[in-house]
Amino acid sequence: MSILAVGSVAFDNIATPSGRRENVLGGSVTHFAMSASFFTDVRVVGVVGEDFKPEHEDVLRKRGIDTRGIEHVKGKTFRWGGQYLENLNEAKTDFTELNVFEHFKPRIPAEYRDSQFLFLANIHPSLQATVRREMKDVRLTGGDTMNFWIQGARSELHETLKLVNILLINDGEAKMLGGETNLPRAAQKVLAMGPQALVIKHGEYGATIFFREGAFGIGRHPFRAPALPVEEVKDPTGAGDCFAGGFMGYIASQGELNREVLKRALFYGGVMGSFAVEQFGSERLHNLTREEIEERFQLFRELTHLE
Amino acid sequence: MSILAVGSVAFDNIATPSGRRENVLGGSVTHFAMSASFFTDVRVVGVVGEDFKPEHEDVLRKRGIDTRGIEHVKGKTFRWGGQYLENLNEAKTDFTELNVFEHFKPRIPAEYRDSQFLFLANIHPSLQATVRREMKDVRLTGGDTMNFWIQGARSELHETLKLVNILLINDGEAKMLGGETNLPRAAQKVLAMGPQALVIKHGEYGATIFFREGAFGIGRHPFRAPALPVEEVKDPTGAGDCFAGGFMGYIASQGELNREVLKRALFYGGVMGSFAVEQFGSERLHNLTREEIEERFQLFRELTHLE
Repeated sequence: MSILAVGSVAFDNIATPSGRRENVLGGSVTHFAMSASFFTDVRVVGVVGEDFKPEHEDVLRKRGIDTRGIEHVKGKTFRWGGQYLENLNEAKTDFTELNVFEHFKPRIPAEYRDSQFLFLANIHPSLQATVRREMKDVRLTGGDTMNFWIQGARSELHETLKLVNILLINDGEAKMLGGETNLPRAAQKVLAMGPQALVIKHGEYGATIFFREGAFGIGRHPFRAPALPVEEVKDPTGAGDCFAGGFMGYIASQGELNREVLKRALFYGGVMGSFAVEQFGSERLHNLTREEIEERFQLFRELTHLE
Repeated sequence: MSILAVGSVAFDNIATPSGRRENVLGGSVTHFAMSASFFTDVRVVGVVGEDFKPEHEDVLRKRGIDTRGIEHVKGKTFRWGGQYLENLNEAKTDFTELNVFEHFKPRIPAEYRDSQFLFLANIHPSLQATVRREMKDVRLTGGDTMNFWIQGARSELHETLKLVNILLINDGEAKMLGGETNLPRAAQKVLAMGPQALVIKHGEYGATIFFREGAFGIGRHPFRAPALPVEEVKDPTGAGDCFAGGFMGYIASQGELNREVLKRALFYGGVMGSFAVEQFGSERLHNLTREEIEERFQLFRELTHLE
């Protein structure tokens, strides 16, 4: 089934202990879409400038991603520069040039209206809410956010959270949003704001999904998926979006939503995140195969499963 | 099979967000022994002062722990005071009074000589090495250490590591000992120092066991066990020792050492650690039953296993 993803398209300058790269095709919706495309049909909505060339769009098209929702406008594409030289877990931003993204108003093509799944990547919560309200008939909505909105647009974010079924954020964001230093308690506070499920990403330690009592008819027990111990993280940029792409993409590929599907989705999220960090941006996904994904899924299973 | 544990016995003053407690029976060997006693016969070697009364020894004896190796000398027992008011993951030490522990020279009773398993809790690496050399016939030795020795007694620690089969430390200690910020690379460095396996405890994120190539004849792939998301951590003191007790105790209870035994041992370690944090010190273990342990083991399994 089709999944519509709305978010940023960007060019990134990235410095990590493994090297430096300029103009890496990035942005939350790009990473998400590349990852989700291994599981299901993906449609993207975003905005780019004149520096976004046909060869960039081809990267997405080669993965079968529907790019008709990428709006081309005058000016430059969103650009971000950051480094992970001291800490691979947290980017230090060198510069942010919003460019055409500053006035981004998501326009959803008529052909996208029948999408059954929706992912609201990390953009202003008000834009997320507008898109969600327009897409009345989606079966399931996933969403992301970040500290910047939690601190700077909290009331808008609270409105958006009422419209999101599954929120995907990291430990620090969950604690900030929930106002609790204890993770399970923070999770319960966030779930009380609206989402039926909350995926908290722990970086190198995997991810946990927490459920609101009675959500999806599957009880309240959380579920945890591991991350693979990776000896060389070349670049963590986009890993969270690739995680979300694997998670939402797998869900969209399944006929029904139950506990087992959500559990496997969490594993696939971890698998896609583990590939993402192997190259700059989501370049590792350009030539990735579904067979490699399944192999790594088995590796994740062997890593944690008792006989 | 019997496991001999050598380490500290202490009285702790502890302050956490859940409250304050004084004179809590603690020390690494106490927590370890209480936890391991649910799986196998445990013998302890340690030193206490005149303030260590029969009722304290009874706590251990009630769990069937052999306390003949606890030496009673003139003076006061080791006392530690610490708080976790700002950060439940790291104790802030208020005071340390070594007392009789300052001149601790482990004396192993003749009746303990046939112990098949050995655990060297966190004491000076030279004392650990002496005990290990005395216990020539043990089948498997586990050990713990801490930042204090990694920084202050590195060459002695290196000697000890050659005598230890499985080292159990936390993330920060592994990175410091291995001189690497990347965890799997730090693990490989530590394994090159001697141990065949390295258990790295991730606190609320569980633990990973890394193997030296060919160790125990089971290949090199790591294995990961989860931790339970705990809504109220009353006191983390001793949780790491209780983890080690569950891990080593389960291994000692099994006839053979293979990958599956080590995997289950890692789960049991996590289970015992999760109980430990529910009360001050290891008090939760005083009335714990093996049935509760098995129930929680199943919870850990459900938390991470796909169908």
